[in-house]
Amino acid sequence: MTTAENGPPARYHHGDLRNALLEAGRVLLEEGGPSALSIREIARRVGVSAPAAYHHFSGLDDIAVALAEQGFAELAERLQAAPSNVNGQLAPAGMAYIAFARDNPGLYRLMFGEGFGGAFAADDRIRALRSQAYEVLKDGLSRRLPAGEIGTAALFLWSLTHGLALLMIDGQFDPGTDPDALVAAVLRLSGKGLPTSAERTDSV
Amino acid sequence: MTTAENGPPARYHHGDLRNALLEAGRVLLEEGGPSALSIREIARRVGVSAPAAYHHFSGLDDIAVALAEQGFAELAERLQAAPSNVNGQLAPAGMAYIAFARDNPGLYRLMFGEGFGGAFAADDRIRALRSQAYEVLKDGLSRRLPAGEIGTAALFLWSLTHGLALLMIDGQFDPGTDPDALVAAVLRLSGKGLPTSAERTDSV
Repeated sequence: MTTAENGPPARYHHGDLRNALLEAGRVLLEEGGPSALSIREIARRVGVSAPAAYHHFSGLDDIAVALAEQGFAELAERLQAAPSNVNGQLAPAGMAYIAFARDNPGLYRLMFGEGFGGAFAADDRIRALRSQAYEVLKDGLSRRLPAGEIGTAALFLWSLTHGLALLMIDGQFDPGTDPDALVAAVLRLSGKGLPTSAERTDSV
Repeated sequence: MTTAENGPPARYHHGDLRNALLEAGRVLLEEGGPSALSIREIARRVGVSAPAAYHHFSGLDDIAVALAEQGFAELAERLQAAPSNVNGQLAPAGMAYIAFARDNPGLYRLMFGEGFGGAFAADDRIRALRSQAYEVLKDGLSRRLPAGEIGTAALFLWSLTHGLALLMIDGQFDPGTDPDALVAAVLRLSGKGLPTSAERTDSV
């Protein structure tokens, strides 16, 4: 950015600089994935020195954790805002989950530890925020299922949406001309299960 | 390894060295994930010089592609060998898929491009092998579903098993004391769908 390369160092109020650094981190994440994160590059982009960035973050792990926190908070908001959740319908939440990952593929990969697995596994804030997003999912299920079945059902839905989101953002299959319709069709199967030609419908 | 550090360079027949290099690559993958792959370290471990390794592989991408090829071939074998596939039952194939990922977490992450996304996206061999594993899954479904429903159903099952496998190998949830039973319970939902308390069972 021109400020860093051609002009004097940029000046920020305390909170503004922290936010500017995180914003630059998100741009880097979406440009090159979690491995593209670098404090020097983040600082360069907002026009401050690396030491100025270290004033706000103890290191790259700390920035990564802060970015993942933003991600989980935004994901929980999206799930909560998904329409028609009142009757225990699950497809809108599933669509919202996958849309979040497709809108923020670099951030989504980071949230699940790519490149920072060690740092995240030990971080209580990440664990708490991940649980919080998961609770939104379970809340939706509680309107539909008896308490004893919610755990397995939530893991089923999370696996399905996590897997589909990653296959899509990793370009593992050709989503055709209408990816949203494909996602909706796949999610629909979570409610009715795969049809079977056998007599016994429990013959999975 | 002692040969490299204390003894004379190891001597291999042509094919043996290639296999030894790949074997060392797999050990590295499982020790530190895709980012731990390094030609120098692979060569060091089998007790040859880096140039000797370059005689077999044009670079790190080439080794990564060869390792992923091994992975997809082994995954397809495991799916084909899954018991009880004759009646279109899906749980055994799903269990086999997830067991493969849990047995080879570093390799599994590599197969889906972690760290080598660019190299893999452009590689026809990877694409062909991935398709081949996918065809095994579709074959199982063809005994159960009309042709027009197989595509969506296969993507549904692949998403579910891919997501569950990654959540497990990434340690994203506590699988409790009997992970196999949990996997089986989650896969069972793919056949019957999530129960609903609402009247309309299509109310996903």
